[in-house]
Amino acid sequence: MNILDVANSAKKASISLSATNTELKNEALKEIVKALNNNASEIIKANQLDLEVSQKNNLAAPLLKRLRFDAAKIQEVTEEIESLIKIPDPVGETLSTMELDNGLELYKVTCPIGVIGVIFESRPDALVQISSLCLKSGNSVLLKGGSEAQNTNRILAKTIAEATLKAGIPDGWIQLLETRSDVNEMLKMDDFIDLIIPRGSNEFVQYIMDNTNIAVLGHADGICHVYVDETADLAMAEDIVIDSKTQYVAVCNATETLLVHEKIAPEFLPGLKNKLIAKNVTILGDQQTINILEEIQPATEDDWATEYLDYMLSIKVVKNMDEAIDHINKYGSGHTDSIVTADKNNAKRFMNQVDSANVFWNCSTRFSDGFRYGLGAEVGISTNKIHARGPVGLEGLLIYKWKMIGTGQIVDDYSTGKKKFTHKKSNKKFEI
Amino acid sequence: MNILDVANSAKKASISLSATNTELKNEALKEIVKALNNNASEIIKANQLDLEVSQKNNLAAPLLKRLRFDAAKIQEVTEEIESLIKIPDPVGETLSTMELDNGLELYKVTCPIGVIGVIFESRPDALVQISSLCLKSGNSVLLKGGSEAQNTNRILAKTIAEATLKAGIPDGWIQLLETRSDVNEMLKMDDFIDLIIPRGSNEFVQYIMDNTNIAVLGHADGICHVYVDETADLAMAEDIVIDSKTQYVAVCNATETLLVHEKIAPEFLPGLKNKLIAKNVTILGDQQTINILEEIQPATEDDWATEYLDYMLSIKVVKNMDEAIDHINKYGSGHTDSIVTADKNNAKRFMNQVDSANVFWNCSTRFSDGFRYGLGAEVGISTNKIHARGPVGLEGLLIYKWKMIGTGQIVDDYSTGKKKFTHKKSNKKFEI
Repeated sequence: MNILDVANSAKKASISLSATNTELKNEALKEIVKALNNNASEIIKANQLDLEVSQKNNLAAPLLKRLRFDAAKIQEVTEEIESLIKIPDPVGETLSTMELDNGLELYKVTCPIGVIGVIFESRPDALVQISSLCLKSGNSVLLKGGSEAQNTNRILAKTIAEATLKAGIPDGWIQLLETRSDVNEMLKMDDFIDLIIPRGSNEFVQYIMDNTNIAVLGHADGICHVYVDETADLAMAEDIVIDSKTQYVAVCNATETLLVHEKIAPEFLPGLKNKLIAKNVTILGDQQTINILEEIQPATEDDWATEYLDYMLSIKVVKNMDEAIDHINKYGSGHTDSIVTADKNNAKRFMNQVDSANVFWNCSTRFSDGFRYGLGAEVGISTNKIHARGPVGLEGLLIYKWKMIGTGQIVDDYSTGKKKFTHKKSNKKFEI
Repeated sequence: MNILDVANSAKKASISLSATNTELKNEALKEIVKALNNNASEIIKANQLDLEVSQKNNLAAPLLKRLRFDAAKIQEVTEEIESLIKIPDPVGETLSTMELDNGLELYKVTCPIGVIGVIFESRPDALVQISSLCLKSGNSVLLKGGSEAQNTNRILAKTIAEATLKAGIPDGWIQLLETRSDVNEMLKMDDFIDLIIPRGSNEFVQYIMDNTNIAVLGHADGICHVYVDETADLAMAEDIVIDSKTQYVAVCNATETLLVHEKIAPEFLPGLKNKLIAKNVTILGDQQTINILEEIQPATEDDWATEYLDYMLSIKVVKNMDEAIDHINKYGSGHTDSIVTADKNNAKRFMNQVDSANVFWNCSTRFSDGFRYGLGAEVGISTNKIHARGPVGLEGLLIYKWKMIGTGQIVDDYSTGKKKFTHKKSNKKFEI
């Protein structure tokens, strides 16, 4: 099949899927679990082949680690599917209801988006996760993986496609693109793909965002901040900064820059420095921070815009909260920023004016995560300002339709004044 | 100011605007009404200049009509602003609440998107409408109008900017781009503009959608369908088809193609033909329709994909509902499609499988409209499949933030098992 046929069949399947009932979708998810377990040895063998080739090609160690798909990974992804089965079907939920007139009812009802394009580097577990999320939400999925994982991806996609076909899900809903051309071909398919979800390095995600007219759900950098305000409880602030920076440094919601109000900086920073050094954190600071702490590296303009993903923290002393907000909006990535303060009004204004997906008061930036938010499933973390923002659950794979049930009404009767709209809101659920 | 300075100041203003209270925003809207009335004669004079130049330049009659901004238009736009003032503030609404633990509460709260780019042809009333909607929802707006309306746009933008500045709204929230370069410069400003709303011809909107990475809220074609099913009440079907086609032909929700089940076509079509001809509608049909109706023009492949916006209707006889659904999903524009049927199951499946923003059962396609839906205000009609779909009210200019209020919580306590998440949903509203 050429790429257009593939896309066409995915679109066709998405139409059937949008009317597929919950039981059948859950049955198909169970079949995927079974099939992954049954094909485990074959899957692991294919992955070993990919690992061998990648080792020969000197793939970097972190990428090799992400490429590994072993028995433990199979258990992990199947457990995730088991918990996905238990989540209520997100399709068909009534978001709002309005009686336009007697016997003319308008409903805003959730429905699948259609065809989701997934582009991922290395990690084959992303293939299983995202395709099961697509199935649960009634979307077709076109997958484009990296060549380093081609054997693993091929058998995983085949396993899922066969298992779901057996359960009665329409053929074509999941397809792996294996054309020689690179990812750019997929980025141009705006007639077929409604949303792209990239999984990979920051540079990879940024490249995708910059090179397609299709909506992209994701985030590149995660440059998060903690701002310690004049009235902060300094013991609390210390705990929050240490946790935000060091609890797990390699993730997008770890803090990269600390902003401290000048009035409390001389009292706060020296104690914090000792705790940070005990955790092996390298400190970089602006001139005022250097004046207080001495023996630290100066932070350059580039530091404010750098996601270290490492045991490094840049620190800046600010005149007031406005300077902190301006700094965050200028250098941040719109991901997660936290204020530590005892001043309610400052907390309120910080949370309104910091233009980020997650704005926190008196807690660690590390909380911004789909599991911790209790979302049930995480499609990704988005720094978009339309559609879905922050940790995104299944609702990121949904849109809505306006469904209207009439009894023969025509507009002319309302235009001529023969009938009048009632426009009564109600809590009625859509049902036929 | 160069275009980057303009965009920067709009972004800066949007940060202040996002924390501006309802009273101040409504006060500013009242000031706009006052200022438009006070400057009426100057505005009308500027518009007459534009009209004269455009007449000399032989601007087409429909464009000239849309360019006109007279006393009646001023009354119309000020009435719209008056009713906008009465709508509740859409910013700060709590969408969901979750207690993560005792003293750690997560809220999903609506907020402005940021900077909206509006690109419009001819109609200066679009400038007033969309900028007042942006103000109410706390967004900055960058406007790029057509050169044919430059004098009118200039005075309108100036009037609104001055009136709102007087009321206390931050300078820079509304700006007219008047660079010599064309619209393409704006389409590249993805670092500053979060959403583009185009207002103009189908070709104009399509051009914008095809040439930017910024999200676009709008629609190009409106190719709407009525499908008359086997079990339809034929008198009802006749009324619905006539209304959908002829109630107002020049709009996007008028029907362009009628699909009729083959079993009832011979009974239904001849009577309908007479009614259509009485309304001066030209009928084009597929071979089966021609066999039944005779003396009508054949419909070509192009007809199925054409938005006539005129007294013309293409008719196709279909074997069954599946053929109708396939036809709509292939040739339609995802706008509005209606089924006339007495069969509940068919209605249900049609509404699930027709991939359009508005799917109706037993009523006219002409109902899909923000006013008729009771939305209060209409930002536009969108055929997007992310963010907002169908008639879009103020919520199309909003996104949400995750706001978390803690009391010093750190993630490490939950990772080490010292504390446990409670994940209790609640109906509590966000308030500080």
